[in-house]
Amino acid sequence: MFAVAATLLVFSIPTPDAHAALSAALLAEWPSYAAYVISFLTILVIWLNHHAVLDSIRTLDRPLLLLNGILLMTVAVIPFPTSLLARYLMAGHYQSTAAFAYGLTMSGMAVAFTLINIYAKLRHLFTTPFSLLGFSTGQLSYPLATVLALFNYYQVALVIFAATAIFYMVLPLLRERLLRESST
Amino acid sequence: MFAVAATLLVFSIPTPDAHAALSAALLAEWPSYAAYVISFLTILVIWLNHHAVLDSIRTLDRPLLLLNGILLMTVAVIPFPTSLLARYLMAGHYQSTAAFAYGLTMSGMAVAFTLINIYAKLRHLFTTPFSLLGFSTGQLSYPLATVLALFNYYQVALVIFAATAIFYMVLPLLRERLLRESST
Amino acid sequence: MFAVAATLLVFSIPTPDAHAALSAALLAEWPSYAAYVISFLTILVIWLNHHAVLDSIRTLDRPLLLLNGILLMTVAVIPFPTSLLARYLMAGHYQSTAAFAYGLTMSGMAVAFTLINIYAKLRHLFTTPFSLLGFSTGQLSYPLATVLALFNYYQVALVIFAATAIFYMVLPLLRERLLRESST
Amino acid sequence: MFAVAATLLVFSIPTPDAHAALSAALLAEWPSYAAYVISFLTILVIWLNHHAVLDSIRTLDRPLLLLNGILLMTVAVIPFPTSLLARYLMAGHYQSTAAFAYGLTMSGMAVAFTLINIYAKLRHLFTTPFSLLGFSTGQLSYPLATVLALFNYYQVALVIFAATAIFYMVLPLLRERLLRESST
Repeated sequence: MFAVAATLLVFSIPTPDAHAALSAALLAEWPSYAAYVISFLTILVIWLNHHAVLDSIRTLDRPLLLLNGILLMTVAVIPFPTSLLARYLMAGHYQSTAAFAYGLTMSGMAVAFTLINIYAKLRHLFTTPFSLLGFSTGQLSYPLATVLALFNYYQVALVIFAATAIFYMVLPLLRERLLRESST
Repeated sequence: MFAVAATLLVFSIPTPDAHAALSAALLAEWPSYAAYVISFLTILVIWLNHHAVLDSIRTLDRPLLLLNGILLMTVAVIPFPTSLLARYLMAGHYQSTAAFAYGLTMSGMAVAFTLINIYAKLRHLFTTPFSLLGFSTGQLSYPLATVLALFNYYQVALVIFAATAIFYMVLPLLRERLLRESST
Repeated sequence: MFAVAATLLVFSIPTPDAHAALSAALLAEWPSYAAYVISFLTILVIWLNHHAVLDSIRTLDRPLLLLNGILLMTVAVIPFPTSLLARYLMAGHYQSTAAFAYGLTMSGMAVAFTLINIYAKLRHLFTTPFSLLGFSTGQLSYPLATVLALFNYYQVALVIFAATAIFYMVLPLLRERLLRESST
Repeated sequence: MFAVAATLLVFSIPTPDAHAALSAALLAEWPSYAAYVISFLTILVIWLNHHAVLDSIRTLDRPLLLLNGILLMTVAVIPFPTSLLARYLMAGHYQSTAAFAYGLTMSGMAVAFTLINIYAKLRHLFTTPFSLLGFSTGQLSYPLATVLALFNYYQVALVIFAATAIFYMVLPLLRERLLRESST
């Protein structure tokens, strides 16, 4: 499902009209490439984190399957706000509204992910000590970016969307390095 | 296949035209969000139930594979009536016809699911005692909603579509609780 | 891949325009439902047969992987002639050309499938005695239907497309019954 | 993900308008069939090579998962330059710009693939002796074709795209033959 949603993101990049001057049209489409990359990397880190969380959970009971389904519902919808963001950044108006819709989707996704973690923590389903610390970043950054988009600071919001994905890509690398260093 | 069908549902949410006033356009699209959520949760519960049924079946013989293929055919088509429902609820006319088409698809799906259960029951393929009770709900609720849509009670039909999905999400939670209580 | 191609078939069913009289529009779309069902059942039987063939092959060497890739290429393109068939049956002209394109795709698929079987047979890769008989049906029926479409007998071609899928659904059931009877 | 991206390629083949003279329209679309076949075979060989590389890697650490994610990002975007190439070859103008965009995507993919190989080599993660030789072909051919497209030799570029895919299909067959001959 993560794979399908990530692959469908390609449809947020419009194929220019056959009568368009192609070079100019492709350059003008840069916001759709940026939106593609940010959303792809975001789905990628959700995927890896989701995999790590499910791996460290003893048993997937029915409530967890349902919470998981709700997370998947927020992930599967990501191509929609990505298209929105791409189209309105290209159009040059209503960028903040598009960024707001994008942020709302990401915040919903962060909430669904946190619910899984909290439920598994409360039911003692984690087989390894599990820190909620890393996950709280998205919990804070996405709502923050959503509120900033509401007040028209959509550029800042976009930077936060990109930075959150990169943060989650870099975080485990730092952790592994720390673990290696502390073990020597 | 369930994952792909569920992810394709996102295309039932139209990306507003680049010239539209975005906030108003997004708010006017609420029926497409509702249709997305109802169809996604419905596919989710079919998926979980389908998984549970196949897990408790000893061996997948050829007739069962074919019945299963017919079930998949009804699941894979769900994005079509979902788009239909979203578009005509937004347009504000022919809502009952769209709800009728939606109900017909869901009824077909319920029939295919029931055929699998009946066949497996008759051939004694279930490894655990298997109650047909839970499955009979969709068997009744979907045709009922379809008939109601035919008589223009499309709002009631929509409530039944949503309620059926929620019922199947809650039912196993209730069952688990009952099992836990009876074992103590 | 079979699952994705089969699920994408849903896009060959057009969602009627929001201004259309929905009941009439949905009824007029019946050829797209027929095309969906025929293509879905066809992909389903290719899938099941493909699974059966790969299961009875000792080792997937590189030439087999490539032949398999070419088979997948013909399967993944099926949504295109399906859309074509649906659209031109609805439009009421050029039905034979559309049926010809459909038949050409199916014939290509049958050729790719046969190449896999012949290669595996020549290299003695089958672990069980494997009859090429069943597979020769599609080898004959699809080119026949393609030629008939060329001479404007597109209705006969469509019947053959549907009959071939149904034949492959029923064949293993007959075989199983024969096996059961001969073992008693 | 490879499967989904390859299956989505079918949408780069446009279904002719219902009012078009179908035979002529289908013949005029031949560049989209060529683009479909080239991109499909390319994704197929990336898939097989990717599978071979991951199979011979001891453990997928986090940096490798991220590099892998970036490779998947370049693969998942392939339907976009494929559509571009199909549309502008059919339109008969800006073919070089479209081929340039196609080459850029393929070069990015080759870079991502090489980064995976270099990283795994440096970290001694390969379980079997692994030659970077085969992979260096795409590393050279794709940037070369991209530069040629920039200077309007788009026909040469297209031949290189097709030849690279075929080279990677034939290479392992030659290798296996060499291995068989040297072992006797």
